[in-house]
Amino acid sequence: MGLLVKPMETSLGTMIYTYDGAAGEALGKRESHTPKIEAPKSVKSGEVFEVKVKVGPHPNTAEHSIRWIALFLEEDGRAFNPLMLAKSSFAPGYAQPEVVFRIQLQKGGILHAMEYCNLHGLWSGKSPIKTG
Amino acid sequence: MGLLVKPMETSLGTMIYTYDGAAGEALGKRESHTPKIEAPKSVKSGEVFEVKVKVGPHPNTAEHSIRWIALFLEEDGRAFNPLMLAKSSFAPGYAQPEVVFRIQLQKGGILHAMEYCNLHGLWSGKSPIKTG
Amino acid sequence: MGLLVKPMETSLGTMIYTYDGAAGEALGKRESHTPKIEAPKSVKSGEVFEVKVKVGPHPNTAEHSIRWIALFLEEDGRAFNPLMLAKSSFAPGYAQPEVVFRIQLQKGGILHAMEYCNLHGLWSGKSPIKTG
Amino acid sequence: MGLLVKPMETSLGTMIYTYDGAAGEALGKRESHTPKIEAPKSVKSGEVFEVKVKVGPHPNTAEHSIRWIALFLEEDGRAFNPLMLAKSSFAPGYAQPEVVFRIQLQKGGILHAMEYCNLHGLWSGKSPIKTG
Repeated sequence: MGLLVKPMETSLGTMIYTYDGAAGEALGKRESHTPKIEAPKSVKSGEVFEVKVKVGPHPNTAEHSIRWIALFLEEDGRAFNPLMLAKSSFAPGYAQPEVVFRIQLQKGGILHAMEYCNLHGLWSGKSPIKTG
Repeated sequence: MGLLVKPMETSLGTMIYTYDGAAGEALGKRESHTPKIEAPKSVKSGEVFEVKVKVGPHPNTAEHSIRWIALFLEEDGRAFNPLMLAKSSFAPGYAQPEVVFRIQLQKGGILHAMEYCNLHGLWSGKSPIKTG
Repeated sequence: MGLLVKPMETSLGTMIYTYDGAAGEALGKRESHTPKIEAPKSVKSGEVFEVKVKVGPHPNTAEHSIRWIALFLEEDGRAFNPLMLAKSSFAPGYAQPEVVFRIQLQKGGILHAMEYCNLHGLWSGKSPIKTG
Repeated sequence: MGLLVKPMETSLGTMIYTYDGAAGEALGKRESHTPKIEAPKSVKSGEVFEVKVKVGPHPNTAEHSIRWIALFLEEDGRAFNPLMLAKSSFAPGYAQPEVVFRIQLQKGGILHAMEYCNLHGLWSGKSPIKTG
């Protein structure tokens, strides 16, 4: 008898690690790689607020560093998500993988951050945010 | 009785559309949004070759455009994937969402491209590549 | 008689506006476009410190916004300058043109910030910083 | 008697090397660092054409590489220049500092390319282009 189930196809999205989804070798990397989002849980629609995203502690050398962090919004009720809000890149040895953006939203949802480590791939984290 | 199954958690990776994974409203967007990779199926290890990535035809205005395309490698046998190879951003109205990079790989695997449309989110496509 | 003096050649560098160098139509744009750097005047070598760079008040729409801010160091005694330290890009309507980076320097010099407005070009500002 | 001439202030723009403006130590770096633009000298208004920008031959390692290339237009008759058209970044060891964009212009002018080498700073080159 042949294979009855088509093997799961990988796509880029399936390769983005998360704290809860990490397994195997990635388990030991999740504390140093998962982006942490510091943002209010509730903001007024249209009001500017600060979002800090940080990764690490993590090595910060030309051979191994967090190259960039990007911030996205999964907006409530939106057919197509996410919206990209901002991105920051960091020169190894000079800039820590931590950034503060000033954001304003018309509608709430879930903030997602993604970071790229040149040795350990793409990692994402998230934080819900409401507007009222 | 309450809910017996914990609802599926979303992460950023689950939001990246693919041609085969698109459903509902995204079905009508997949021809105009899935990145197409033109690259050799087999290259010599270390040899430089061209990779073209293109998206569209797609609108190209300040209000609606493909903002950037990034190219990644899922390298055979590597514990942590992907590796980011190159990225290009495009000014609406001036640059089409199409780019040619010159790449060299030590080991083969799968090339993945990701693009961002400011209205229709993140989309990925892929193309296998061998080294010999 | 022909022209005796070769006309001044322009290069990209000569097009980057500064507050003091702005003239003509650019005079009216310098308050809203010159990047302002908030950083200590003196830091310890290797110690992490915050650098805020902000632009504006400035419109923030798809048709007209500050697209990105980059931070550089003109390092004392270095033959080739500048070093790029970090960069941030901003989605119009969602992210204000203001960012906080966490930087560490081995040697002091002058911090330079550059920003790009899609209608009014490239602008730079600077702030000296010592290490001790 | 004191100094009668205020010393020339540096700004970021004055630090961007060009082939003709390079002096001293930069003379030996200009062949490997000046971006070369390959584009038509004349195009039809609105028609898509290819622009190749390349740098090098140049080392391509984590410690020393061309990190990115950006393409700008100094548009004829425009009060504020330049316009940013496209940008590409390159992962050391995987992507050569060479890229092909597909551009369309309403008006001609001068194409300018800028690149960043993490050891030898910012360099620019240019190529005139007419529309008809």
